[in-house]
Amino acid sequence: MASLPPLTESLVPFLDPYLPQINRTVSLDKAETDENPPFITLTFAQSIDSRISSSPGVRTSISHLETKTMTHYLRSKHDALLVGIGTFLADDPKLNCRFRVNHNGMDHLIRPVIIDPTFKLGSFYEGSKLRQVSLDSKGLPPIVVVKLSKIRSNPEIESFCIQHDIVLLPLEGELASKFQWIEVFKELKKRSIRSIMVEGGASVINSLLSSRDSRSGQPLIDSLIVTISPIFLGKSGVEVSPCKELRLSDVSWWTGVQDSVICSHLN
Amino acid sequence: MASLPPLTESLVPFLDPYLPQINRTVSLDKAETDENPPFITLTFAQSIDSRISSSPGVRTSISHLETKTMTHYLRSKHDALLVGIGTFLADDPKLNCRFRVNHNGMDHLIRPVIIDPTFKLGSFYEGSKLRQVSLDSKGLPPIVVVKLSKIRSNPEIESFCIQHDIVLLPLEGELASKFQWIEVFKELKKRSIRSIMVEGGASVINSLLSSRDSRSGQPLIDSLIVTISPIFLGKSGVEVSPCKELRLSDVSWWTGVQDSVICSHLN
Repeated sequence: MASLPPLTESLVPFLDPYLPQINRTVSLDKAETDENPPFITLTFAQSIDSRISSSPGVRTSISHLETKTMTHYLRSKHDALLVGIGTFLADDPKLNCRFRVNHNGMDHLIRPVIIDPTFKLGSFYEGSKLRQVSLDSKGLPPIVVVKLSKIRSNPEIESFCIQHDIVLLPLEGELASKFQWIEVFKELKKRSIRSIMVEGGASVINSLLSSRDSRSGQPLIDSLIVTISPIFLGKSGVEVSPCKELRLSDVSWWTGVQDSVICSHLN
Repeated sequence: MASLPPLTESLVPFLDPYLPQINRTVSLDKAETDENPPFITLTFAQSIDSRISSSPGVRTSISHLETKTMTHYLRSKHDALLVGIGTFLADDPKLNCRFRVNHNGMDHLIRPVIIDPTFKLGSFYEGSKLRQVSLDSKGLPPIVVVKLSKIRSNPEIESFCIQHDIVLLPLEGELASKFQWIEVFKELKKRSIRSIMVEGGASVINSLLSSRDSRSGQPLIDSLIVTISPIFLGKSGVEVSPCKELRLSDVSWWTGVQDSVICSHLN
């Protein structure tokens, strides 16, 4: 596995106010009984015209290498890394953390979470990089969020997951059109996940940007970190845009060799 | 007319490489016979999700006041300011320059150009701010680009324009779906316009971003200056995105109080 370029130093103080400020010495017991939802960071790289890929299902390299290192640095600050099944099938990502967090050369182990209501993962997983990384102990096997009705009607899903060390997270209700994010996050919290970095794809990002806690009215995202690259991907690209207007607060910009990064909290 | 806040000083060296480098002492005769097209700067303010307004026909204030001053500074560096009729009808803009370019307190007079193939301007112009600014000698009357077939079938257009000091620029061919930009620019050059700042709206921006010189294959835009503001306007907003991928070169970023500005040339 090729090593990452060093992290641009100025990124550390820039990103710090937007990272989960969690006391990592907290006991698992406490974390498991904690009622607060996990800290959610939404992060992605987009073109000026807010496209994250040139067309559906096509992996598109948008950002500069220095922001790739930033992504792995951010992963080192979170317990879990969440993506939708579309992104997983299109990109075949490793979903691990390659940023060295300490001097013994160990990488931080981040838990992959895949939103996969109808369990499309099955046949693909066997030959995936994620599976290989897990077998090589360079990453963890994923938690996969699947509709309860799908699991009930397909008992082989459960046996497949047990066989492959996949944690199956069954979810009631309809996930396909509108994600029941709060339920997903609560279930993940029960599994000691106190911070989640959400990376894509567009349907996950747009759904999460548009979602609010139905009781408090608060957005579900704590921090938003968007890399903007100097390219237009054009009309046929896959677009990021919430269903309604969304104002940001505590905004900071950082400029690198090629890209600009915006960090903010959500109003 | 309220005065503009002072220009943020760091914007001057930042913008300089992207401004028309035209010898302004050149004689009009020379400019008129010059075969080169005018220098084209495309500039607009957008949300993170590349929307320039919250819905069609609605004027949306996106950027910070400091970039408003920047806009007037940019206008002071160009001979003409071009917008589409949709923007003109929606915003009722003055289309003048309020940036003081010299110490005698005079504003730079920039020539408004309105792309209006079917002459929708007519009944609206009488009560418009543009008309008032022109009557008050705080701006110039516009050049209006109208389809030749429309002018021929409506002789009252010509008399209306003469009566209101509007310069009518008739254009052959179909302007409605795809602008014949090179023809428009050549005609403007014949009228001593050596530099044009294009400000919107979305159909003009998207068409110009997508257009290339059919012979040289070169983009028609010389400089692109985009202000990105920390807001998502959402799916129902009016979007900027060209029909094809577009790579940028000589990219610089500037960050202000709230917004980031990207300047570039086009590949």
